Amino acid sequence: MLFSKFYVPTLKETPAEAEVISHKLLLRAGMIRKLTSGIYTYMPLGLRAINKVANIVREEMNRAGAQEISMPMVQPADLWQESGRWDFYGKELLRLKDRNGRDYCLGPTHEEVITDLVRGEVRSYRQLPINLYQIQTKFRDEIRPRFGLMRGREFIMKDAYSFDKDDEGVNASYQAMYDAYERIFTRLGLEFRAVSADSGAIGGSFSHEFMVLADTGEDTLAVCTSCSYAANLEKAETKPQPMCTQTCAAHEQVATPGKHTVEDVAGFLAVATTQVMKTLLFDVDGKSVAVLLRGDREVNDVKLKNLLGATSVELATPEQVVAWTGAPVGFAGPVGLKVDAIYADHEIAAGTDFVCGANAADAHLIHVDPRRDITLSTDAAPLGYADLRSITLDDPCPACGGPLTMPKGIEVGHVFKLGTKYSKSMNATFLDENGKEQVLIMGCYGIGVSRVVAASIEQNNDANGMIFPPSIAPFEVNVLAMSTKDEKVMTMGREIHDWLEGQGIDTLFDDRDERPGVKFNEADLLGSPMQIVIGGKGLERGVLEAKNRKTGEKRELPVADWRNAVLEWRKEVMKEWGLA
Amino acid sequence: MLFSKFYVPTLKETPAEAEVISHKLLLRAGMIRKLTSGIYTYMPLGLRAINKVANIVREEMNRAGAQEISMPMVQPADLWQESGRWDFYGKELLRLKDRNGRDYCLGPTHEEVITDLVRGEVRSYRQLPINLYQIQTKFRDEIRPRFGLMRGREFIMKDAYSFDKDDEGVNASYQAMYDAYERIFTRLGLEFRAVSADSGAIGGSFSHEFMVLADTGEDTLAVCTSCSYAANLEKAETKPQPMCTQTCAAHEQVATPGKHTVEDVAGFLAVATTQVMKTLLFDVDGKSVAVLLRGDREVNDVKLKNLLGATSVELATPEQVVAWTGAPVGFAGPVGLKVDAIYADHEIAAGTDFVCGANAADAHLIHVDPRRDITLSTDAAPLGYADLRSITLDDPCPACGGPLTMPKGIEVGHVFKLGTKYSKSMNATFLDENGKEQVLIMGCYGIGVSRVVAASIEQNNDANGMIFPPSIAPFEVNVLAMSTKDEKVMTMGREIHDWLEGQGIDTLFDDRDERPGVKFNEADLLGSPMQIVIGGKGLERGVLEAKNRKTGEKRELPVADWRNAVLEWRKEVMKEWGLA
Repeated sequence: MLFSKFYVPTLKETPAEAEVISHKLLLRAGMIRKLTSGIYTYMPLGLRAINKVANIVREEMNRAGAQEISMPMVQPADLWQESGRWDFYGKELLRLKDRNGRDYCLGPTHEEVITDLVRGEVRSYRQLPINLYQIQTKFRDEIRPRFGLMRGREFIMKDAYSFDKDDEGVNASYQAMYDAYERIFTRLGLEFRAVSADSGAIGGSFSHEFMVLADTGEDTLAVCTSCSYAANLEKAETKPQPMCTQTCAAHEQVATPGKHTVEDVAGFLAVATTQVMKTLLFDVDGKSVAVLLRGDREVNDVKLKNLLGATSVELATPEQVVAWTGAPVGFAGPVGLKVDAIYADHEIAAGTDFVCGANAADAHLIHVDPRRDITLSTDAAPLGYADLRSITLDDPCPACGGPLTMPKGIEVGHVFKLGTKYSKSMNATFLDENGKEQVLIMGCYGIGVSRVVAASIEQNNDANGMIFPPSIAPFEVNVLAMSTKDEKVMTMGREIHDWLEGQGIDTLFDDRDERPGVKFNEADLLGSPMQIVIGGKGLERGVLEAKNRKTGEKRELPVADWRNAVLEWRKEVMKEWGLA
Repeated sequence: MLFSKFYVPTLKETPAEAEVISHKLLLRAGMIRKLTSGIYTYMPLGLRAINKVANIVREEMNRAGAQEISMPMVQPADLWQESGRWDFYGKELLRLKDRNGRDYCLGPTHEEVITDLVRGEVRSYRQLPINLYQIQTKFRDEIRPRFGLMRGREFIMKDAYSFDKDDEGVNASYQAMYDAYERIFTRLGLEFRAVSADSGAIGGSFSHEFMVLADTGEDTLAVCTSCSYAANLEKAETKPQPMCTQTCAAHEQVATPGKHTVEDVAGFLAVATTQVMKTLLFDVDGKSVAVLLRGDREVNDVKLKNLLGATSVELATPEQVVAWTGAPVGFAGPVGLKVDAIYADHEIAAGTDFVCGANAADAHLIHVDPRRDITLSTDAAPLGYADLRSITLDDPCPACGGPLTMPKGIEVGHVFKLGTKYSKSMNATFLDENGKEQVLIMGCYGIGVSRVVAASIEQNNDANGMIFPPSIAPFEVNVLAMSTKDEKVMTMGREIHDWLEGQGIDTLFDDRDERPGVKFNEADLLGSPMQIVIGGKGLERGVLEAKNRKTGEKRELPVADWRNAVLEWRKEVMKEWGLA
């Protein structure tokens, strides 16, 4: 592609609206333009990167035996009512009415549509397994769309759905997708981790997330340095500890005027924060629930939600705190507390002699022994103790006990074993080997195609711009002509461009009548992994200058043997990206 | 592709819902499935055909210098308010509100979004021309979605938009698109015609439609057999005729009890239908308008609408007829008629001694001379006469006077010279060579990608199924193994399949354990232009059987030299489709 004929509206200034680096750079490089909140046009350069990702996804999905289809974006409400999600899904589901007043939504995901499709086609176990996928535009009406392609409202997703006759089948389908995802993210040249994950609102029994590692990631991972354990922080289990066998003196109330926080109370009473028992109050599907944690720990909402099988878990409002405890915020405690349920984290069972709120303004209790003084609810957890906190770097790996690291990640893929959640409610069945009607067993598998492009930029960038892996780069090679007036330079540039394109290597030839400085800066901004600079003086000396965008390493390639020299150098660049 | 691994849910019965042949066959061949009215899932085979069309479109758009982008499907209302179409577009525009109550629509077309994009980028004439296109899902809330992919609500369209600095520029851009469209439909192997067309609701000054010829087409074309004239019936001009110089006896009222229709009146009064003057009453943007035509002619609504610059032209209701004429339907006439305006077709000026309604029940006037007895409105047409009827086979070509043919066509493409309709209202300007602000001049260019697949089936089919041109066929070659138990047959089949796929020729190998009859029938249904049948007996004789799906011609190809034989035969098949 000739740069002079290619529409790349770069910006000199970083738009003020952009908060994260990928958003800034995508705008600056003219790859995307905002239409309205969370909705973007993909410009020629951006679309090229998205298509590179989509094609690798497509190849590996096909290799794994999945078949490509394309489902509608506008979906009828009745299917969502059948599955039960019409009421459950909330405001992210953008609802609309057609000219006849019928209800529809814009598809945020396609479980209902695919289940409806397959139940109309499959009669017998002989037709199974089936795995159908699409690469398609989705819409989620995010409450706070932000970060450009990282969390948009309209975005491109690959979603696949498998249908099997039994557990063995769905396990094989799941594994095939897991393996395909590993190949996809490896081929994309990204540093990534597959982690155990919570199944969330889509439901189902088992799932893994694929995370692109980046310091700017919104997710925190727990990754063992000794074994293969890796999980999302939402999911990573903490180990139960031996129950404390000691007790302490009888509890008594002390004045703690104006001491609201764990740190204030610990300091005032001269105890460690680990001896403070935090009492957090939640509205769980309309019920009042207290959660007890060590003062230095953070509650894990997802674990609480899963423990109680809840739809909604919201921190109590100050008004609710006053109503439930009789005290202002900061003085809640479990002793004598009248709420619907109280649960405690395992670490509470492992300790004694705690400090906690007294359910009275400016007062705490000291010498609290959990097993003696607190009545926990035992309906959802044995003795009322459960894993309710997020894992920390102090914790051992829950699998092998080894030390953990906690890198940040960006979720780009998610594989779910759905089981019969949708097939049961929507009555998607088949006849088994014995002619008996059985419910189909499903899996679903997503990749955020447009988000992958953003994540790759979050992982790979520097002060000058983007650094694309060769497999995502809109152009793998950027050839820069230092002078458009020097016919030798231009002839050489065209020759290299044409030959590389002929080899199937996407190449951008900067043939514009611009100063070298402009070309260097824009080449760095656009992030092609390989730059080849052609200057008049270099040609006189018989050399081209090659620059590796990732390492910054520069070298000279001999003009006399430039084809081989470029290909040899390309092999080295590929190797640095972990690509063959 | 192995048929045994490919998901093609064919149907034995034709679904009752399907009215037209393409809809029936697309359903029967498992290429599409209906989700809800006018909204379809593209199944693996259907998606392949759509992608074949899309890729040819993409190649030719790129060749013409257009650049691919992808614009959002969800569009903010404010842009449509700016262009003035929010109120004007009607119910085809599906409107919706997001979680914050803001107004949006699903994009039925993208003039507003592209104009907004380009006005944000273009400052100078140096940045022009620009031509941007996308291949994307559109939504139009059709009042009566029907005929499968022919008139769906959600469909795939290629839409391109050009921006130029002057008339010369837009003419060049328009011609480049026109030429690209000719290449596209030629490469698709379709019989088509480019015809002059009305610009319709998108607006603008000049346009051509690309029509796939098919007896089932909804459009009628007027095509000259002598010159290159071709136009949509909506648009094709009829020639004015010399004004009649004679007059007739004074008009008088006669009784015509129960004679409502032209034929009844002509028969009753023993005159030719050409001597009856038809008076049609319309509600044009709220005004009462009468149109006078010869009794054997049909009014052309589009011409009337354009003549009056009207937004809405509706035939008067029976109540309006009674109110405006004082008589029941069937007895309206122009003499003394009190309506807001009366216009007559040129042919009325060319005649005299007409019969027309008397504006009284069961009565007509005879001996009516238009120039003497009728007061026409002269505001929109000189003397009140205009071209208001549809052309017929009796008419001469308006360009050369030669004889016309009137084939049926399916609109698959449309090129428009928009001018400044959108750029003016949305203030999309640039600075010209003199630093003066000028309004951008636009063109827009659409192809109904999913509709092309349906149109190709409407044009090419027989009692056994679809007959795809090689460039649209999901698989160009269908290899049929007559016995899966005969290892020689299967080996040969796999060899042919693998080799053809290696040549880039998409091939479906029917390796299923099915009876030959099933395979033959499904091969004809699926419509690959080339079938290669491998039977045990044939192999013993050293031959493969080849069948040309279009001509039905069968021939034997020698096993000994099958590669060359297949390629030679393929050349012949291509030639029959007009392809190189």
